[in-house]
Amino acid sequence: MAKNIQSLERAAAVLRLLAGGERRLGLSDIASSLGLAKGTAHGILRTLQAEGFVEQEEISGRYQLGAELLRLGNSYLDVHELRARALVWTDDLARSSGESVHLGVLHQHGVLVIHHVFRPDDSRQVLEVGAMHPLHCTALGKILSAYDPVAHSEAIEADRKALTPRTVTGLEEFELLLDETRARGYASDVEETWEGVASVAAPIHDRRRMPVGAVAITGAVERVCNSGELRSELIAAVRECARAVSRDLGAGRF
Amino acid sequence: MAKNIQSLERAAAVLRLLAGGERRLGLSDIASSLGLAKGTAHGILRTLQAEGFVEQEEISGRYQLGAELLRLGNSYLDVHELRARALVWTDDLARSSGESVHLGVLHQHGVLVIHHVFRPDDSRQVLEVGAMHPLHCTALGKILSAYDPVAHSEAIEADRKALTPRTVTGLEEFELLLDETRARGYASDVEETWEGVASVAAPIHDRRRMPVGAVAITGAVERVCNSGELRSELIAAVRECARAVSRDLGAGRF
Repeated sequence: MAKNIQSLERAAAVLRLLAGGERRLGLSDIASSLGLAKGTAHGILRTLQAEGFVEQEEISGRYQLGAELLRLGNSYLDVHELRARALVWTDDLARSSGESVHLGVLHQHGVLVIHHVFRPDDSRQVLEVGAMHPLHCTALGKILSAYDPVAHSEAIEADRKALTPRTVTGLEEFELLLDETRARGYASDVEETWEGVASVAAPIHDRRRMPVGAVAITGAVERVCNSGELRSELIAAVRECARAVSRDLGAGRF
Repeated sequence: MAKNIQSLERAAAVLRLLAGGERRLGLSDIASSLGLAKGTAHGILRTLQAEGFVEQEEISGRYQLGAELLRLGNSYLDVHELRARALVWTDDLARSSGESVHLGVLHQHGVLVIHHVFRPDDSRQVLEVGAMHPLHCTALGKILSAYDPVAHSEAIEADRKALTPRTVTGLEEFELLLDETRARGYASDVEETWEGVASVAAPIHDRRRMPVGAVAITGAVERVCNSGELRSELIAAVRECARAVSRDLGAGRF
């Protein structure tokens, strides 16, 4: 098999570096983080800057991600079939449940949020489209881990960090959780990722019955749960939404 | 000056090609569109695919943009100082005006929307973060063209298309419009871009008094205008918002 193009791999590494942690870095930091000669790193940064993928702060000379990535990321969303099919159904789900709705797909080692409908009230909310959520403890992540073999391997190999005292981290317990998820057809997250927040998710399948994503309702545990259990009408609503989107994607009804 | 890296420039061209027009393209189309040998194009696509920047449809073999662009675009937003400073002010502006609010910056030959607060009602609305708006006819674009010399050149050199019968396309008339914009400190767009839609925008300056962006209220012409004129309380509100964000960015009050 032919080799991939080294300068492109390095450029991608520069962008990943700027997307994590510090986010504004000088040339020396970038070069040493990636084990590149300064001249090599500078050539990559200069080209990325010319293309709009990175920007340079005038005063400090440090680099950060560029606006072209936002434009291209938006184009990615425009062409995404699952998202396009889900728009109306997820809007309806947020309206009927009164809670916020997320649509997620597997990306790298986690769940990438590709659509987010705000809770239909006046409160200030932060849009999470483009954000990454962990696989092992969120309802979206558990659905993907339960149904998608690639997501499953990622979740198994991941460092399943305890984000709250309720996060399941042990491998055996996690596998049991996924068995249960498959058996009942939905996944829950009751304060396993964020204190005070509960979530319920269901799988979306395409015309070849492949698991292509997951949809979830997320809200304050006081509203989403009742005596410590997820409210059954929310479970039913999220599963109905997932089935509707799946049918729109061509999945059979049976 | 050292030359930029050719394989990176070509990869950026592939991504731009996939972001426009067709959006799902086969190898031959991509190679011929960019004047590359098929083998060269394939090497670039294979590497971009390995890095998550493009995805390949299994059945047709066609390429489209990849999820990593969405993740990186989201990271770009996270680090954007203007956007971070404007979040609270634009929320307040949408609430007080009852209309949707956009925050835009100059990118390439247009206005890149970096924040969008929905009109505070129950209606279904499409998020425009990451979308590009034209410079010559939108309120945001006129503000940038009036205050930012780079945006001005872009607007002058652009093909100023008539998007509605009210779009100003002639150069002389356009320059007069920008003079007027600078003289009164705000820009309007009454059905010059979208039929039935009106908009008013004001400039945001940073600590060095550089124009770094613009904020706009947009809504149905019946609500935003009164007897064909923009409602003065909306003009005042958008200018106050722009001043507040500018002050947060360190611009002086005088």
